[in-house]
Amino acid sequence: MHRLLYKDIVERALTEDLGSEDCTTGSVFSGEEGKAVIVAKESGVLAGLPVAEEVFAQVNRQISFLTAFQDGDIINTGDCVASLEGPIAAILMGERVALNFLQRMSGIATATRAAVEIIRGTRARITDTRKTTPGLRILEKYAVRTGGGVNHRFNLADMVLIKDNHIRGAGSIREAVARVRRCCGFPVKIEVETETLDEVKEAVACGVDIIMLDNMTTSQMDEAVNLIDGRALVEASGGISRERLTEVAATGVDLISLGYLTNKSRALDLSLKLY
Amino acid sequence: MHRLLYKDIVERALTEDLGSEDCTTGSVFSGEEGKAVIVAKESGVLAGLPVAEEVFAQVNRQISFLTAFQDGDIINTGDCVASLEGPIAAILMGERVALNFLQRMSGIATATRAAVEIIRGTRARITDTRKTTPGLRILEKYAVRTGGGVNHRFNLADMVLIKDNHIRGAGSIREAVARVRRCCGFPVKIEVETETLDEVKEAVACGVDIIMLDNMTTSQMDEAVNLIDGRALVEASGGISRERLTEVAATGVDLISLGYLTNKSRALDLSLKLY
Amino acid sequence: MHRLLYKDIVERALTEDLGSEDCTTGSVFSGEEGKAVIVAKESGVLAGLPVAEEVFAQVNRQISFLTAFQDGDIINTGDCVASLEGPIAAILMGERVALNFLQRMSGIATATRAAVEIIRGTRARITDTRKTTPGLRILEKYAVRTGGGVNHRFNLADMVLIKDNHIRGAGSIREAVARVRRCCGFPVKIEVETETLDEVKEAVACGVDIIMLDNMTTSQMDEAVNLIDGRALVEASGGISRERLTEVAATGVDLISLGYLTNKSRALDLSLKLY
Amino acid sequence: MHRLLYKDIVERALTEDLGSEDCTTGSVFSGEEGKAVIVAKESGVLAGLPVAEEVFAQVNRQISFLTAFQDGDIINTGDCVASLEGPIAAILMGERVALNFLQRMSGIATATRAAVEIIRGTRARITDTRKTTPGLRILEKYAVRTGGGVNHRFNLADMVLIKDNHIRGAGSIREAVARVRRCCGFPVKIEVETETLDEVKEAVACGVDIIMLDNMTTSQMDEAVNLIDGRALVEASGGISRERLTEVAATGVDLISLGYLTNKSRALDLSLKLY
Amino acid sequence: MHRLLYKDIVERALTEDLGSEDCTTGSVFSGEEGKAVIVAKESGVLAGLPVAEEVFAQVNRQISFLTAFQDGDIINTGDCVASLEGPIAAILMGERVALNFLQRMSGIATATRAAVEIIRGTRARITDTRKTTPGLRILEKYAVRTGGGVNHRFNLADMVLIKDNHIRGAGSIREAVARVRRCCGFPVKIEVETETLDEVKEAVACGVDIIMLDNMTTSQMDEAVNLIDGRALVEASGGISRERLTEVAATGVDLISLGYLTNKSRALDLSLKLY
Amino acid sequence: MHRLLYKDIVERALTEDLGSEDCTTGSVFSGEEGKAVIVAKESGVLAGLPVAEEVFAQVNRQISFLTAFQDGDIINTGDCVASLEGPIAAILMGERVALNFLQRMSGIATATRAAVEIIRGTRARITDTRKTTPGLRILEKYAVRTGGGVNHRFNLADMVLIKDNHIRGAGSIREAVARVRRCCGFPVKIEVETETLDEVKEAVACGVDIIMLDNMTTSQMDEAVNLIDGRALVEASGGISRERLTEVAATGVDLISLGYLTNKSRALDLSLKLY
Repeated sequence: MHRLLYKDIVERALTEDLGSEDCTTGSVFSGEEGKAVIVAKESGVLAGLPVAEEVFAQVNRQISFLTAFQDGDIINTGDCVASLEGPIAAILMGERVALNFLQRMSGIATATRAAVEIIRGTRARITDTRKTTPGLRILEKYAVRTGGGVNHRFNLADMVLIKDNHIRGAGSIREAVARVRRCCGFPVKIEVETETLDEVKEAVACGVDIIMLDNMTTSQMDEAVNLIDGRALVEASGGISRERLTEVAATGVDLISLGYLTNKSRALDLSLKLY
Repeated sequence: MHRLLYKDIVERALTEDLGSEDCTTGSVFSGEEGKAVIVAKESGVLAGLPVAEEVFAQVNRQISFLTAFQDGDIINTGDCVASLEGPIAAILMGERVALNFLQRMSGIATATRAAVEIIRGTRARITDTRKTTPGLRILEKYAVRTGGGVNHRFNLADMVLIKDNHIRGAGSIREAVARVRRCCGFPVKIEVETETLDEVKEAVACGVDIIMLDNMTTSQMDEAVNLIDGRALVEASGGISRERLTEVAATGVDLISLGYLTNKSRALDLSLKLY
Repeated sequence: MHRLLYKDIVERALTEDLGSEDCTTGSVFSGEEGKAVIVAKESGVLAGLPVAEEVFAQVNRQISFLTAFQDGDIINTGDCVASLEGPIAAILMGERVALNFLQRMSGIATATRAAVEIIRGTRARITDTRKTTPGLRILEKYAVRTGGGVNHRFNLADMVLIKDNHIRGAGSIREAVARVRRCCGFPVKIEVETETLDEVKEAVACGVDIIMLDNMTTSQMDEAVNLIDGRALVEASGGISRERLTEVAATGVDLISLGYLTNKSRALDLSLKLY
Repeated sequence: MHRLLYKDIVERALTEDLGSEDCTTGSVFSGEEGKAVIVAKESGVLAGLPVAEEVFAQVNRQISFLTAFQDGDIINTGDCVASLEGPIAAILMGERVALNFLQRMSGIATATRAAVEIIRGTRARITDTRKTTPGLRILEKYAVRTGGGVNHRFNLADMVLIKDNHIRGAGSIREAVARVRRCCGFPVKIEVETETLDEVKEAVACGVDIIMLDNMTTSQMDEAVNLIDGRALVEASGGISRERLTEVAATGVDLISLGYLTNKSRALDLSLKLY
Repeated sequence: MHRLLYKDIVERALTEDLGSEDCTTGSVFSGEEGKAVIVAKESGVLAGLPVAEEVFAQVNRQISFLTAFQDGDIINTGDCVASLEGPIAAILMGERVALNFLQRMSGIATATRAAVEIIRGTRARITDTRKTTPGLRILEKYAVRTGGGVNHRFNLADMVLIKDNHIRGAGSIREAVARVRRCCGFPVKIEVETETLDEVKEAVACGVDIIMLDNMTTSQMDEAVNLIDGRALVEASGGISRERLTEVAATGVDLISLGYLTNKSRALDLSLKLY
Repeated sequence: MHRLLYKDIVERALTEDLGSEDCTTGSVFSGEEGKAVIVAKESGVLAGLPVAEEVFAQVNRQISFLTAFQDGDIINTGDCVASLEGPIAAILMGERVALNFLQRMSGIATATRAAVEIIRGTRARITDTRKTTPGLRILEKYAVRTGGGVNHRFNLADMVLIKDNHIRGAGSIREAVARVRRCCGFPVKIEVETETLDEVKEAVACGVDIIMLDNMTTSQMDEAVNLIDGRALVEASGGISRERLTEVAATGVDLISLGYLTNKSRALDLSLKLY
């Protein structure tokens, strides 16, 4: 993930948290140097180290940021995730913002890894959705990759996804696909959302790249996978809970998209300690 | 919440989601008008209607946005949260972004209300922390208020909060408070974080406005409240779970701050349907 | 093309041209209303009307902008492309900026249409490249579509394009494709740039979506198309001049990408006249 | 040209081209260092080296950028315009954007130099217009200077230019000039656009600084120059083609403004090669 | 002054003043409509009405803003400068920001007018300097014009001003002017700063447009004006106080530049009252 | 004051002053190195050194900026405030902008210090208002602190200030305070503006934190201070001139707010000299 993609996000977060000045720290400290560590208070998958490093770099170039980990590593309670050295006032000013990024991103990576582990050994891969935090999609999709998932489209232009509303608007899957083929560029793949086996058949007949099985029962999915028979990638979607992952993966789908990775994620517990 | 505070957040979210163009919707629709509703798929407290309305207004001024609810209202499964009318392509383009805001904010309001209900009848009020999503603090703090909570400080300049690191840096609570009084403006209140009853006593002796009881047991909190005896506001803090709220409130503290409201929130389930 | 995609581009262009104030017009006029027309001084394909309209709307909401044309229409010398009515000073202030957009975009659309006409009747479609004006890609790709072309990828994330440097870096096409398949999301298609028939064979064997024939002779292209035999889209690329379009299209390639559409485009001659 | 004038233009160009990430290069390379050269594929005048250098600096500070040339130098086919060393992935990420700037600017400088050469030995100088690419005027005017031209005004505030529409609005050249003298600051020069010899006479009588001869025949220009007789600078303007430059310069005009330098420029052919 | 030139300045001022929300007004009012007037508490020259109007428009489109005055009018103590009607909370939110602009700009216009009156009847005009408030030059220069002054250059590119440091750098006025003529465009006028009569003579010999007499005594100015004898505009400059204006103007200089207009201006006293 | 708080202000000021290029300096100099000093031309309190340093750093990283002073120091006529070394063209380009910041901020600090000296020995402290220059509040409040004053609230969210319009809107001070207590967060202090002794009594009865005595006579202030008797901080406000400071401070008020510090400030005279 290139720094150009998050440096402005970091700057906005810092100015949001700073207000007109950190008067507490500014009153107490005046140039003292010190050391600090970021410590894991629970285990999980780490994500966001370059973002946390950017936070401290923007606060003060004199803070050194060292870590023995890299994004994607598993950390355990008590692990020293990173160590910092530099002006104490600057470290404290960056603390909350750096942790807010690191905890949120690690939380998403951890949830993703958990799902990936559950379905290990099947052909299925875990993917994400557009149900991300406004303004932070780039970071949240990166966290999903870091946790072992594979990204679905980033935005409305990345891929065609023909949903129920489009199908109804066009009159049929066939007509919707035809319109899309007339208008959209060759670089974009076409996915169709289906809710019934008839729709699945129609989508297969149109030769689309990916077929989404939306809110289907496991046995419907079984049938759909058989029907499609490798002629398109198959994505299971629609409120699939962690508990249902095993049986969904067993149907032979290629992709399972999980909105909860990003819209019900819980921050991984980390804290910063001066010493 | 004034529109100046979120219009740029909304614009960034829309351009993030749009990419270079919504080719699916642009291929299928060409100016057809339609109607849609935002429907609750679970019950909770609604927050973010003006933000959702701003989303659709930025997409296309011709979309009308009507609602019988206002922020803070309780909604139930199946409720029509809002109805929209206008160009279908524009409604679909705003759908995901509007829901991302509305679901996240309503999730926070709902979690806040749940906590508020648990401690109803006590003197305690629920408050938030700086553990918010980078860039969205203004919206998340608003959601906490909407859910019946009261906001803690917005940023580092709003209030003095002397934490363990400051106390260690200054040598004592007394010295830290003295330094802060020399440097900070009279408009800011002073809060001190305490971990022991001795620290509580020292804070009381300094005449600070608010005393935070950090990671204390319930019986320590009991003692601390007695010790302080109304001479300062008392805030209970430090990983307080929902389960512990009742007993913490029973100690007589004035404020209970909950990081989980914003950093472990789950989006409230809402969806948009064309009809 | 959604207004969110160009409104900031228009605002930057207006402030660039305005400097600290238009003192000529401001001295001569003081509120007089008037009418103006934008007239074609040569024939071509019109592109950019909504952008020109946005220019005048940003200058002064009281300017009305009317046109009997839409983007993609052919215009001829003398045609009245649009008529304006409103405060004269505002019309003159928007004149140059509106024309700069409209002329540039129409120039690109016109060049695209010319290429499309040459190969009409073949299976080939005209596509563009990333050789666009920095900051204006969204408008220039739109102009290519308006002229009848189909857009290649918008940016580095839209699609995988494995070029000679990547192949050399990975050691072989096979290895490069393998690495890409491990890292990139399923939504992106994979294209490989080839310079020899052996590379074409290797690319076909890898099952990529699109194969680019870079700087090949026409007879090499013939062979390549036969070799590929419909198992991938075929793109002819590499300094293909207008003169060579017919013979390249005759080889049966699916796409012909032309850098000159955007980096050697000449503005279509238009002017604004008050009357 | 100060870096403050183009650093944001470069950043917008990079984010435009990057999208959500360069997945091709990111998959294939992982930190390898390498070398590359930018090679001239045709001869011309180089312009834009500091902008290209800024592109690579923004991508990655570790890329070194060395060149034996400076802007304004003539380069020939095969010349190594610049050499780069650093992380290969970063070099490839900056490649297209750097070339887009360098090719466009060099194209303009080359066209300017060609015009300058044609009229060498006459008193005339080549100047530009406001027919520039929206958002890139600062770079394109710089390229004109680099090619040996002299810049006309940058924006509407820089100078007064009384055009036909202003003359008609005021009723006469005399009245327009009077109004301008009342309102505009003393720092701005006054130019009047004339279409007939009578207008030329009126402009001379008003004592303006520069008189533009718009769309005049060569013999009209001859007469006008005689009439003006050194009492104002004389600018020839209006669709003057390259072919007509010699005879226009021979009339003794001081300036020849050429819109085609910027709105019909063709990019100079350059490419980047890893080795 | 076009709205594009100040709308972002106004938005920054409003967000600066708003912080995270106006909690006082938000607590007390909830939608009540009301009326208010802006009243003059001292007499002076009004400047900034469109900027004040923009402030209220950005706060809430439903506020009507009416005035019987226009910029440049003289107002007296007790005059109702403007009347407002709309939501009270919105009026109060805009109050301070609108007054801050209006008072500052009117203060500058008033000081300018005072200087203009003192020298009325002489050939001299009052002009300004670059000693303006960072970020507000466009507004302050406008206020100078509104007060009857004429603007000096807006920025470093507008005009050449050869100062003592440039003369020393080049070796002589002659050499400095020669270098400038080689490099700068014909649209910019050339001014030279002189401190002695010898320098004045050299500047006249170079044929520059404007000669600045810097920190000269009145009798030196007399001599300089005689020496120059209409061959260039003459600007008196250098800490000229209000008291010295009459005698400086009597020397026959064309321009008197006054830094104090913008860097020692006092806000004109205005207040807003609800009724 | 953290650099994040002013770096964008500095960049806007530089681009405002630069326009399209400094052609004078660019013509005369070409890379020569030199030295310069910033010299005090009158005595006062220095404020803004880090801002001036940031100006030169943004112009050219190669300029060194050295000073023996720090903000808050008293400087006297002739003092060398700072010395610079680096490319002459860059130093001259930063000169005016750096001085504009430094002079304005030092002017405010000087005026503040003068007021502080007058009331030395009393319990009163000097504070500021929201009557600051739009967009520069952060710098002007910093200058007040530098001069020995204490900052009043930064923005509308920082503190509750119940003014006459709020009291009238709510019906009484009591009701206004009650509404504010229901809606606003516990972190904000509450101040009430009073104009009569009855209002003072009512405010005391409400237990607010700070009571403002607005436009009262000195004897009214005496009475009010007695009435309040330490139960709230007391702020004297309302057009208090320098002449009246002594008698106001003698009443025993805690704070005296002075709008003139920021809205009638005069720049401290400084200049930059090359040598």
